[in-house]
This record gives sequence, C-alpha cells and structure tokens, in this order.
Amino acid sequence: MAAAPLRIALAGLGTVGGGVIRLLTANGALIARRAGRPIEIVAVSARDRARDRGVDLSPYQWEDDLALLAGRPDVDVVVELIGGSDGPALALARRTLGLGKGLVTANKAMIAHHGMELAGMSEAANDGRGAPLKFEAAVAGGIPVIKGLREGAAANALTRIYGILNGTCNYILSTMEDTGRDFGDVLKEAQALGYAEADPAFDIEGTDAAHKLAILAAIGFGAGVAFDQVEVEGITRIRAADIARADALGYVIRLIGMAECEEGGTRLFQRVQPCLVPRSHPLAAVDGATNAVVAEGNFSGRLLFQGAGAGDGPTASAVVADLIDIARGDTGPPFSVPVAELEQMAAADGATRRGRAYLRFIVADRPGVLAEITAAMRDAGVSIESLIQQGQADEGGEVLVAMVTHDGPERGVVHALELLRESPSLARPPLVLRLLD
Amino acid sequence: MAAAPLRIALAGLGTVGGGVIRLLTANGALIARRAGRPIEIVAVSARDRARDRGVDLSPYQWEDDLALLAGRPDVDVVVELIGGSDGPALALARRTLGLGKGLVTANKAMIAHHGMELAGMSEAANDGRGAPLKFEAAVAGGIPVIKGLREGAAANALTRIYGILNGTCNYILSTMEDTGRDFGDVLKEAQALGYAEADPAFDIEGTDAAHKLAILAAIGFGAGVAFDQVEVEGITRIRAADIARADALGYVIRLIGMAECEEGGTRLFQRVQPCLVPRSHPLAAVDGATNAVVAEGNFSGRLLFQGAGAGDGPTASAVVADLIDIARGDTGPPFSVPVAELEQMAAADGATRRGRAYLRFIVADRPGVLAEITAAMRDAGVSIESLIQQGQADEGGEVLVAMVTHDGPERGVVHALELLRESPSLARPPLVLRLLD
Repeated sequence: MAAAPLRIALAGLGTVGGGVIRLLTANGALIARRAGRPIEIVAVSARDRARDRGVDLSPYQWEDDLALLAGRPDVDVVVELIGGSDGPALALARRTLGLGKGLVTANKAMIAHHGMELAGMSEAANDGRGAPLKFEAAVAGGIPVIKGLREGAAANALTRIYGILNGTCNYILSTMEDTGRDFGDVLKEAQALGYAEADPAFDIEGTDAAHKLAILAAIGFGAGVAFDQVEVEGITRIRAADIARADALGYVIRLIGMAECEEGGTRLFQRVQPCLVPRSHPLAAVDGATNAVVAEGNFSGRLLFQGAGAGDGPTASAVVADLIDIARGDTGPPFSVPVAELEQMAAADGATRRGRAYLRFIVADRPGVLAEITAAMRDAGVSIESLIQQGQADEGGEVLVAMVTHDGPERGVVHALELLRESPSLARPPLVLRLLD
Repeated sequence: MAAAPLRIALAGLGTVGGGVIRLLTANGALIARRAGRPIEIVAVSARDRARDRGVDLSPYQWEDDLALLAGRPDVDVVVELIGGSDGPALALARRTLGLGKGLVTANKAMIAHHGMELAGMSEAANDGRGAPLKFEAAVAGGIPVIKGLREGAAANALTRIYGILNGTCNYILSTMEDTGRDFGDVLKEAQALGYAEADPAFDIEGTDAAHKLAILAAIGFGAGVAFDQVEVEGITRIRAADIARADALGYVIRLIGMAECEEGGTRLFQRVQPCLVPRSHPLAAVDGATNAVVAEGNFSGRLLFQGAGAGDGPTASAVVADLIDIARGDTGPPFSVPVAELEQMAAADGATRRGRAYLRFIVADRPGVLAEITAAMRDAGVSIESLIQQGQADEGGEVLVAMVTHDGPERGVVHALELLRESPSLARPPLVLRLLD
C-alpha cells in the first residue's frame, strides 16, 4: 500500500475509544484495502494516563493537553470520544476544525447543540476548501443511518423519519413487556447489567433520543438542527399495567422519536414520546438494546435501518466507517447541504396533529368517576373507541382507567385533560400516549 | 447553483426509466442542493420511440443508436436500464466505460455475469483516473444496501450476509402463509396483480436472488463475483402443507440468499434456498414484496436493511442516489476494493455445513413406509428431532411425512436421501429445507 496513511489522534479512551483501537488493530489490513490507504493512530489523550484500559497504548504518542493533540503536525484527523455537549469536547472540536483538520465524533449532545457552528467551521476550513466533520456514531450506534439518509435516500423528499433511538429505554420497555415487571424494578436490573447508567436521567427522560432525532431531522429534511424544538417525554411514567393494556389491544409500547415536515416544508415537527406501536409494525419487533430508524421517502417508500444502538464494537464500527470515508475522500457538507442552504423551520404545533391516543387515568375508587371522565371527553369533542376500566383497585386503593380515542385532533385530548385538571377524582396526572398507526 | 450540471443519458424507458424521469422532475431542486449541482437528463433512448410512456420526453434529445447515445459530447454519465446480462445492455456498458464516462445501472444480471470486467474497465478508464460504475439499484430496489455494505459496514470483517432478495417469491410465500392457498394458485394471482412476470422462471427458480447474492457477497467479502458458484433452489416445490407444518413448529418459510466466508476467508459459501425462519427473527416479519438484508460484522454486530425491493419509485431512488454520489465526487472502486485486490475464493462445499433441516416426503399410503424412512435416517446418522406424519392422504392417495432433524452435518441428510433414492415408497423426490437458526 504505497498511499500515505490517514493519521489520527484519539481523544477519550473510554469504552468506545478502546473499541476503536481494537477495531483498527483487528481489521487494519482490510480497512487499508477498502480505504485505499492505512488508517493509523498516531497519538492518544485521556484524563487519566495511568488507568488500565485493557488495550496496549504503547504504540501511540500520549498527549495530556488536548490542544497540543489537535495541533500535532503528524495528525490529519481527530476522533473526539470525550462526550458532553460543551467543555473539553467542544473546545477540541473547535480547535481541530479551526486548524483545518478533520473531526470524527460520536458526541450526539455536542452535535445537537453546536452542530451548525461546527458544520460552518468545517465548510470554512482551509480557506473554504473545507475540513471533514463526520458523526455517524452519534446516532444509533453501529447502524449507518446518517449515511442512509444523507446519501442512500438522497434522491427523496423525506416525509417522515421515526424510530427507536435509545437502547436503554427499549431494553427497559421490552423487558417490562416480556416479564410483566414494573419500571423501577427493571431499571435497577438494567443498571446492574450495564444497560443503564448509574444516573439514567439522560436516557429515560428522552434527552438522548431527542439529541439523535434532532440530528436525523436536520439531515433528512435539510433543516438546521433544532434540538430546542423537540417535544420530549420519557418513559418513567409507563407502568406494567399500561403495557398489559396495550398488549390486549394488539400494541407494544416503544419510545419513539418522530420528525415530520409540515405545511409544505415550512414547519418541523419533532417529538420523543412513548407510543403504542401495532404488533404488525416492524418497530414492534425491535427488542432489547436494539435501535431502528424508519425513513419514508417520496420515491423510496419506507426504508428501515436496524442494529445495535450502542456498545463499544458497534460504535467503533461507525467511527471507523467515517474515517474510511475521509481516507477515500468522500466527505462533503456534514448535514448533506451547506449550512447556508439549510432551512430554518419554525416548530410545528403538535396540538394541530391528528391521530388516535391512549389515555390512562389513575382514579379514586368511588362511583361517578368514569362518568366525569367520559363527560369531559364528550365536552372536548373526543370520541372514545374503546374503554377499559380495571375493576380491581390497582395499588393503594387506586383504580386504573384506560381508553383509546378515535382518530381526531390532538388538541381535543389536550382540552379534555384541561377540563379534568382540577378534578379531585384523579389521583395522579393522566398519561397520554399516541398510537403509531 | 453555479456549478456545472451532471449531464446524463437514459437508455431504456420502461417502468424504471419513467421513474427516474419523474423523480428528477419532482425532486430536482433538492437534488441539486444535495448533489452540489443539478442533475440533468440530456438524451434518452429506447427501442420504440412511438410508445406512450406517460412521461413527457420532449425536453430530451432522442437517440435511436445506443452507441451514439454514449458518444454524445454533452453526456457525462449513462444510465443503463435496458436489462439483460448481455446484448445491447452490455455493449452500451462497455462502450460507455471505454469512452471514460460514468455508468449507473440497475442491471443485476449484467453485474453478476460481467461485473468484474466492467469494474476493471471502470478503474482503467481515463488513463487510470477511473470512471464511475455504480449499481445500487441492482440489489434490493430502493434499499441502500450496497452503500450499507461498501461504506457503512466498511470497518468490519463481515462473517455472514443473508436476506430476502426477491420480492416476487416473498409475495408468493407470505400470501400462501396468510391464505393457506397453494403455490400455483398464488402465482397466478401474483401475475394478474403484476407482482410476477408472465414468465416467472427467473424469479421463482431463484436466479434473480442469486444474481443479487453474488453481488452482495463480492462487495461484503472483497471477493470476485462468483455467480456460477451460487447453489440455487427456487420456491416452486413449496406446498401449503409445508407452510402449515413450519407454522406449527414456530417458523415461516422464506426464500433466503445466504453467503458466508469459510475456512479463514479462503472459501465462499453462497446459496439461495427456501428456509425455515424462526418467527422471532426479523426476517420472519418481512411480508409481501419487501426485501431485507442482514449483514453480520465482527464489530457492528447484526445490521438489517429493509425496504421495497422493486417498483419504479424505489428503483429510481437508488439510481438517482448513485447519480448524486457521482455528482458529489464520491465514487471509488465499484466493489469496494480494486479488482486486482479482490480474492478469488473457491466455492465452499455446502455438504460440510451443519444445521437443522426440514425434510418432507410424499409417500405411498401403505404400512412400513415410515419405518423405511426412519431406518435410512438412522443408517445415515441423522437424528430426528420431531416427526409429523399426516394420517389423511393429502392428494391423489399420497401421504405427507415431514420431520425436523437435530443439528448435524448436511452430508448426513444427503446420505440418507441417497439411501432412499430407489425406494418405491417415495412418490416424489423429497423436499429439504434448512432452518435459519
């Protein structure tokens, strides 16, 4: 292989960093064939040099200082695996692109918050000739979904992008489904098994999925990243009883990130929310920590990309795929079109959308409660398709009432819940899930 | 958009050709943004100029002569949508690449038979600077699976590639499953509905899936295309009774194309065959004319790509994605590595493989037949996991005996069937399907 190697610096030596080193070691020869030249790690950096990471770091130069790492004349591309939307990761990204070097990152928070700035720096670098910025690993782990949208589906006007974007939530929900156990119990187990972080808020409250959704929406719709516009609801209020009811209706519950262009491409709808997914839908079969993304194009029809959403191996696979693209010279605008051409779309008003909804109330166990709820529905113009009242008191003398509405505007349901807001019959705030029909 | 347009010539104006024209018309503006320059059809050619195709051809130059089409100085890329492994399609492909122009094709037969020659021409074109050759539409319609393997999974040593590669067969099998009807009946309906050709042999006998498998295997494993080495068996012998038995065991039947590297990458296993797929496997949920491909990488784990396997819209989506890549300058070796570096792997011996098998015999309705079959199994060392004898004579006084073997070498089953070959008890040749476990 006579061609000059692509020389990289690795910043961050956690699970994914170790995975990248193992991957480049194990598959180095075939990667050199496919990339047209070898990809070589030159230098590495991490917070704690002494820590044993189970990989041999002796072949690489160590840099304590991230700024020096990016500035090394023997480095072409920096791989940022530090994490965090700001702080050292962002400083390193800015410095790398500012120096006109390529940046590969798995950092979804940073791209969701600062993707536009970094893409602008990437385009302006090297006197306008550009410097690559790639982040396949930031969304859905090892699944090449950014490539799938940016290139594979590039001929299409996409109408809708949705999917299962957080493996922790999917593990919890599908385990609740398989075992009938409740949320808190399964979360504890997931933490013990390493499927959930010690502080799981980022995952279970939907923020992580929202980061990924905002990135996918930007690429798919040619819009600026609009993370702040994502409506986010996590899975913490889902009970085993909800999953059982969904099951009786032919549905499973999944945390779905959904983005749509509305009103002729002028408004962007983005929502992360637990949804009832019909058992016949491909996403219903996605179990465990798996991720899956559906993109609907005006010519391609429905495309599905599925695979491991996290883990050192899959994430390293995506990082190195980006490096191979750079080695091959296949780069171009990070968000598919130049930043200046990305549409700035206003947030769509979710309440103007239509669909069916699953509503679940925890009510006091006394006569007249059901009449009160159904009257509020009637007064708000919401038509009930099926109603399930659980006769038995569920927990602490509370009774669970669940219903599915007919297709109708979301604002009807919002209005009905407003009518019920002050009701002493409701023991807790109602849960509203949309049906993915 | 100041950049010079990518100027294309379209050869073949059937369903897909019409789809490409409609797509470039409908999505032209967004494609120009994503590609960095407009993609313009300059000239077209087809057999019959007079035929009404439902698209306006007046903006384009008409060429009767394909050689003149490729030679036009205002054409950068030829899109070949004529079809057929040889004849005018191959002549056009050779001429186009010989002139140093880009070629995009949806022609799986041509790539399966002549892909190596054409890739060699593509690399050698323009005094070694190359001319793009791309064929995303040749495999699995609108699903960007060639890109997924060639680029998305490029960091991995792939261990196995398999999937549902023929929409006609999948439509027939899943309709048989849903309705309990028999093969011939469903085939007639599929023909009436346009899901199967008037001459369906190419699809139902597995040849089309074998073309696609050979292309995927070459790209995934870095091997020369070896279509002649694919073991092929179609779906014509599958009966409603087989599907019912598979169902009772928790399986569906799908035509699966499967490729594996064996013996340290020195041998290539490629087989197209109806398989029993466990209902929990993602491929079991793939219904109708949908295609799906699974690639297992040593770091990515299992990746699944799913979508519409045929049709004018999806196929045009893949053709134009290739054109966008060319307009962006993202090309490189058609089979991921240069032709000279592709491994020439010998065919693996399928009989050395292990697994479970479904065997179905049509036997004469008389005593002792079952004993004869089970004795042959015993003598060949094949262990039977479950056995289903249908008491009732199925059709014409014949009785159906089905069984599933324990895990074991395929050659055991081959040997057992040899022992039974001369048996007067067997009314027809036995059916052997493998289990996808």
